[in-house]
Amino acid sequence: MKAYEILMDIALIIISAKFMGLLARRVKAPMVVGEIIAGVLIGPCLLNIVQPSEYLSIFSEIGVILIMFSAGLETNLQELKKSGFIAFVIACVGVFVPLVCGAALYTAFYGFDGFGSEKFFKALFIGCIMTATSVGITVEALKEMGVLKGRVGQTILSAAIIDDIIGIVVLTFVLSMKDPSSKMSTVTLKVFGFLAASFILGYVIYKLFKKWDEKYPHTRRIPIIALSLCFILAYVAEEYFGIADITGAYIAGIILCNVRDAAYIDRKVNVNGYMFFAPIFFVGIGLKTDLSGINGEIILFSLAFVAVAMLAKLIGCGLAAKCFKFGNIDCIKIGAGMMTRGEVALIITNKGLSMGVIPPDYSTAVILLIITSSIITPVFLKMLYSKSPEPVEQKAES
Amino acid sequence: MKAYEILMDIALIIISAKFMGLLARRVKAPMVVGEIIAGVLIGPCLLNIVQPSEYLSIFSEIGVILIMFSAGLETNLQELKKSGFIAFVIACVGVFVPLVCGAALYTAFYGFDGFGSEKFFKALFIGCIMTATSVGITVEALKEMGVLKGRVGQTILSAAIIDDIIGIVVLTFVLSMKDPSSKMSTVTLKVFGFLAASFILGYVIYKLFKKWDEKYPHTRRIPIIALSLCFILAYVAEEYFGIADITGAYIAGIILCNVRDAAYIDRKVNVNGYMFFAPIFFVGIGLKTDLSGINGEIILFSLAFVAVAMLAKLIGCGLAAKCFKFGNIDCIKIGAGMMTRGEVALIITNKGLSMGVIPPDYSTAVILLIITSSIITPVFLKMLYSKSPEPVEQKAES
Repeated sequence: MKAYEILMDIALIIISAKFMGLLARRVKAPMVVGEIIAGVLIGPCLLNIVQPSEYLSIFSEIGVILIMFSAGLETNLQELKKSGFIAFVIACVGVFVPLVCGAALYTAFYGFDGFGSEKFFKALFIGCIMTATSVGITVEALKEMGVLKGRVGQTILSAAIIDDIIGIVVLTFVLSMKDPSSKMSTVTLKVFGFLAASFILGYVIYKLFKKWDEKYPHTRRIPIIALSLCFILAYVAEEYFGIADITGAYIAGIILCNVRDAAYIDRKVNVNGYMFFAPIFFVGIGLKTDLSGINGEIILFSLAFVAVAMLAKLIGCGLAAKCFKFGNIDCIKIGAGMMTRGEVALIITNKGLSMGVIPPDYSTAVILLIITSSIITPVFLKMLYSKSPEPVEQKAES
Repeated sequence: MKAYEILMDIALIIISAKFMGLLARRVKAPMVVGEIIAGVLIGPCLLNIVQPSEYLSIFSEIGVILIMFSAGLETNLQELKKSGFIAFVIACVGVFVPLVCGAALYTAFYGFDGFGSEKFFKALFIGCIMTATSVGITVEALKEMGVLKGRVGQTILSAAIIDDIIGIVVLTFVLSMKDPSSKMSTVTLKVFGFLAASFILGYVIYKLFKKWDEKYPHTRRIPIIALSLCFILAYVAEEYFGIADITGAYIAGIILCNVRDAAYIDRKVNVNGYMFFAPIFFVGIGLKTDLSGINGEIILFSLAFVAVAMLAKLIGCGLAAKCFKFGNIDCIKIGAGMMTRGEVALIITNKGLSMGVIPPDYSTAVILLIITSSIITPVFLKMLYSKSPEPVEQKAES
């Protein structure tokens, strides 16, 4: 392939992604869903004007890395400390209940071969996909009603962030077990070794970077060095620890989320993300979609998957909130707010696909989950808030 | 190659490019020279920690496309109309004198096999490399002295822009002749066909885009659609007209340079450029550099190349200015201001290398030209202005 030949593919991808994304937003669906559908449209499934290629998969991998880095950068550690313990418990329960329920669902459908078997691992992975909350849509709905700064809103927000961190630790564990010969003790050692190393080293990097950021604020070198750090951590995680590169990228984001220019770095990274790499990732999922494999069983599994994923968060987080003396309706609000899934669930699914852990058919279930949860959550929240309103804060322009 | 494996290469490239670029700036050399040296340092020539790869060459191609698109976007057509004719003549002479002198230099060194021969084509290509002025350094020097808005400064600026346009038409012609079987008439037809089509179609696109930009100013879709347009034009130029993709990208930039959000698009494209793609291009030149092939003849040729390239612009543009009744010193100022070469010369050289028109050794000559002209021009201009000062405008902060 000559270098210029990829230009047409990229142009078609980013233009169709934008168009379908905007269309999706107009019908109140998440933009990523529009981007995936764009991929189905232009891919081998339908029009066949763009084919998946190794080159596109590299762009798409960089897209995922940038999304995870950005998610890390947007973490507000100060805010977390404040609403700390309650949100932490809700997040923990909100990770483990879906994890167990997801694994149970898979086992119910496909049977159980004992702990450590391939089926056990697949079941765990299906559970993993269910863990990651993407609160973007919830936040928007709460903002619209002017209740984001309320106790419920803040609890959801903090719990969703902690949920990401715990989710990624769980994913890291599960993925490290992919090699059937690996002992649990080695896996644990590797994961904790990586986490410990990156937090100790991360602290040193943070201190250095902070000093240096204060010396050269808002210069181009800041996002460039930050991005290099992200790439290096992602590479080191995968190459030397057998840990997913997205974990490395996310940790790089967390290391830098408290430097003064974190928002500046995030903006620059996002420009790269939304103009090039992220659409290639989401459209790429559509390109790789093969609708011919869909049968009754897959559809049944997908519907069950969606129901379990949503109920597990609703009930898990709701019950956890109940332990902290939230009122009944507030518990349901928190549970409902945590139901939405988005990019991260897709990223985990894609990781599983590319490692051959799960077959491509499962992405249908995940896409269905994203669409359903994104539509139901805001409607449900509005109902709950109209039944039991909170003192509404000023809808400030600021 | 697994997708994550490229992350380390990219990280090493962008970090070393930034570091060496800043170092170069500190010693008053152009930053791109620092980036090329970074490539020599980390490449097979010395440390050998990054090797050129097909993946990197795709990133680097996109880098070139973005640089040329940005150059097109930054064209100020209004400004051109004002200082129009004089600048046009200076630019024409400033393109053709170096073109002829460069070809003559090659012929003097390596002989002449008749018109249409391979040697003739190579000679023309060497001339092409000499045509493109990069006035960045001149502009900075004039700004520093507060004389950019003077008559000489404005003439240099306009001439340099027109020079780019004529240069790219000439390059397009020369490259289209690469196929020895191609008739001059077919080449002419293709080039003019493409130019005519892109200007007619470009006018329609411009009108549509302008309307639409006014409806959705400063939204993400603007730079995304603009970028797609650039990629599509680049692809169509290369695939259907046999014209360099960089020509297509440059024309896409010119088509959009008058929409209200041109600067906004340029900023977004530049973020992608400077964070990822452009450093990969410049470092890539260093990576591909093979210093082992350098011998006495190459060194002699390089020195002659630098001298001819600089004198051809100085004398050509100076004499042309003389026809418009500029004073003697002002003519020298204009000639000196047009001497600097930069990115575009490198891009043309790289095009020639990748098409096998010229051997890799010649990039040494071009790099030497960039370094020499960038150092001599500002010093020379300062001397000229201190001898014959212009009314200095306010050095405004605005």
